[in-house]
Amino acid sequence: MKQKVFAELIGTAMLLISVIGSGIMGVALAQGNDAITLLANAIATGCMLFVIITILGHISGAHFNPAVSLAFFLRGELSAAMLGFFVLAQVMGGVLGVWAAHVMFDLPVLQISQTMHRTGGAQWFSEIIATLGLLFVIFGGLRARPDAVPKLVAIYITGAYWFTSSTSFANPAVTFARGWSDTFAGIYPGHIAIFIVMQLVAVVIGHFSLKALLGK
Amino acid sequence: MKQKVFAELIGTAMLLISVIGSGIMGVALAQGNDAITLLANAIATGCMLFVIITILGHISGAHFNPAVSLAFFLRGELSAAMLGFFVLAQVMGGVLGVWAAHVMFDLPVLQISQTMHRTGGAQWFSEIIATLGLLFVIFGGLRARPDAVPKLVAIYITGAYWFTSSTSFANPAVTFARGWSDTFAGIYPGHIAIFIVMQLVAVVIGHFSLKALLGK
Amino acid sequence: MKQKVFAELIGTAMLLISVIGSGIMGVALAQGNDAITLLANAIATGCMLFVIITILGHISGAHFNPAVSLAFFLRGELSAAMLGFFVLAQVMGGVLGVWAAHVMFDLPVLQISQTMHRTGGAQWFSEIIATLGLLFVIFGGLRARPDAVPKLVAIYITGAYWFTSSTSFANPAVTFARGWSDTFAGIYPGHIAIFIVMQLVAVVIGHFSLKALLGK
Amino acid sequence: MKQKVFAELIGTAMLLISVIGSGIMGVALAQGNDAITLLANAIATGCMLFVIITILGHISGAHFNPAVSLAFFLRGELSAAMLGFFVLAQVMGGVLGVWAAHVMFDLPVLQISQTMHRTGGAQWFSEIIATLGLLFVIFGGLRARPDAVPKLVAIYITGAYWFTSSTSFANPAVTFARGWSDTFAGIYPGHIAIFIVMQLVAVVIGHFSLKALLGK
Repeated sequence: MKQKVFAELIGTAMLLISVIGSGIMGVALAQGNDAITLLANAIATGCMLFVIITILGHISGAHFNPAVSLAFFLRGELSAAMLGFFVLAQVMGGVLGVWAAHVMFDLPVLQISQTMHRTGGAQWFSEIIATLGLLFVIFGGLRARPDAVPKLVAIYITGAYWFTSSTSFANPAVTFARGWSDTFAGIYPGHIAIFIVMQLVAVVIGHFSLKALLGK
Repeated sequence: MKQKVFAELIGTAMLLISVIGSGIMGVALAQGNDAITLLANAIATGCMLFVIITILGHISGAHFNPAVSLAFFLRGELSAAMLGFFVLAQVMGGVLGVWAAHVMFDLPVLQISQTMHRTGGAQWFSEIIATLGLLFVIFGGLRARPDAVPKLVAIYITGAYWFTSSTSFANPAVTFARGWSDTFAGIYPGHIAIFIVMQLVAVVIGHFSLKALLGK
Repeated sequence: MKQKVFAELIGTAMLLISVIGSGIMGVALAQGNDAITLLANAIATGCMLFVIITILGHISGAHFNPAVSLAFFLRGELSAAMLGFFVLAQVMGGVLGVWAAHVMFDLPVLQISQTMHRTGGAQWFSEIIATLGLLFVIFGGLRARPDAVPKLVAIYITGAYWFTSSTSFANPAVTFARGWSDTFAGIYPGHIAIFIVMQLVAVVIGHFSLKALLGK
Repeated sequence: MKQKVFAELIGTAMLLISVIGSGIMGVALAQGNDAITLLANAIATGCMLFVIITILGHISGAHFNPAVSLAFFLRGELSAAMLGFFVLAQVMGGVLGVWAAHVMFDLPVLQISQTMHRTGGAQWFSEIIATLGLLFVIFGGLRARPDAVPKLVAIYITGAYWFTSSTSFANPAVTFARGWSDTFAGIYPGHIAIFIVMQLVAVVIGHFSLKALLGK
């Protein structure tokens, strides 16, 4: 069990390193063209997701995402205790990853995001769609091609950075952690709670609707 | 049967979300450099295609395209009734996807495209080539490497955004739906019919010519 | 046999459509930033290579390249007659592909390239390295992971666009065909012969050296 | 044994050709937008890594990296003598690759990098993280999906170019070789030793810590 929790912590830390680090690098090099930064950001995140899900999947299931752990719990495939440990590890790992990225780019470790534009109904709706899509990819992928799930999640998120206005956080631990970074990928802490609520709403919607689409 | 039709509706909606959403995001960020927008547009569309074809393929066949459903019908592999239901679901799903993208980007839901440049003989020829290529990829892929079809279609379309002047609509439901969006991926409604005619011409050409290339 | 030759013709035409078409699209959109055009050019070419090699591989071997056919001939795996038919089909297919791309982009069908910078010792050396690398990928891939050859060739060429100064023609039929297009991917006809000589030199070097590296 | 050492030399040369060559091409075309250059650099390097690891993996193990060879030695899976030969071949191959790239781009063969910004605590920490991540990918990949290791390493490095401030050298032979190129990918020779020390520190940390994460 310790190994599983540790895998969730390390994997989520690596995920945040890729999200935060590539955003910082993009802004440093892209001469203000945020489309190039977002492209690099999306590609780097997708690369990391493929790697950590492939390698850690057989250890912990490679959730790295409280919304995903909650969905497994609702299906009766994760105990309440494990859900608790996983969420704790994901949240801690996420923040550690943010801090590691800051150290790598010679920035103050402790930051609070001042990125104010990640709010409003359009982005909240985006988070519902993005999270529903992620659950569709995971549970649909597990039925259709379990060996392809790492690839499916990585590729879905790479695309979802672009087709949602929120750039698809779709992950409460990632959302919380990005509040601690005043860089490209940051989110103002006052806007975090409602993003997480939307993600959890999507888990509930997904729990009841995915069966209709994918069958039992 | 209901599940199949529902899968076609949801899949086509997701496809249009990726096409429309990533175009809006690109224009918002790329500082007028449409090549970067098209690159993101092509990548996001390819990502989504890989995901929805992999996951929904074993349910409905994952057409998401009336031209493809028609080709299966001509080969006797889809009944006339199912063809009708599929086309209806694809058209409805496509428009729903466009509307969902508009909501996600805080734009008016109901729009009519004013994009006037998607017309003329060169683009009509492009649509024939693009659709023929797509049928080649699907039916050739089904013969050569059925498990690779999701990847083949996704990668073909990612490339075809670039090597055709029409950016490869190659899909009557997608063409119709894009008429409802006055954003990067839109097409003026008066130019839709002839695009669809070209796509159907390609289905007929493909029906008779692909056998010569690929064998029985 | 007719089917094999036809597959080589169609495949090479599709390859040139991707090379020429994506170059035209890139120049039209990239506001003079040739790096973005080359990125799209490389990605579109790689996408097409993956598709045509996967689908036509079991029919003709999917050479689409006289240098590759020659290498198979030198190994005794292709008859002299087939070599002749293949090269003819590849050359004809390549030119047809160029013309199809011109039609798709509303350009004069018949053009002669005026791109004068594809010459000089550095680029000639690039063509030797690029072609040697391609043969290494094909024959090494056939030994190590035959099912991965389509992916290997596609990915190798996507990279090789960037790490050689000639952007890796590495293919006499492609080189010849690109002389017929006064667009991004064109090459001045007076510079074609020596490119082809370098590619053939690489075939000879590869024939004797690859065994040392890859074993019998 | 000769074949293994030769494979390490050729593979590392090819790796450096991709790193150096694509950097030169990027700077030549990207109009000063280093983000586009780094994107092409990362993609070209990833492409080459996938190719050389797939093809040469069954011959030498496809290390192309003294840090990786050292890690195998520490696990008792490579003899001291082979470690010596491998490192020598990797270092020689790397420098030969740099020189080949210079010839391909018509630059003076012998150069000393004057790139002064690859130093400082943040980048040294980046090299530890980058190398640890690489070892995690290799040894974790070998446990979880051995056939996917070429893809995992290629995709990890493509992402790591972006999420570390040093752009992830993570390889003493690559670091040394890049000292010999005064181009985009160069590193001032006076800054090489400490990068290599950090990479070796990561090997030691990884040797003791990866077991805890991945199990025996």
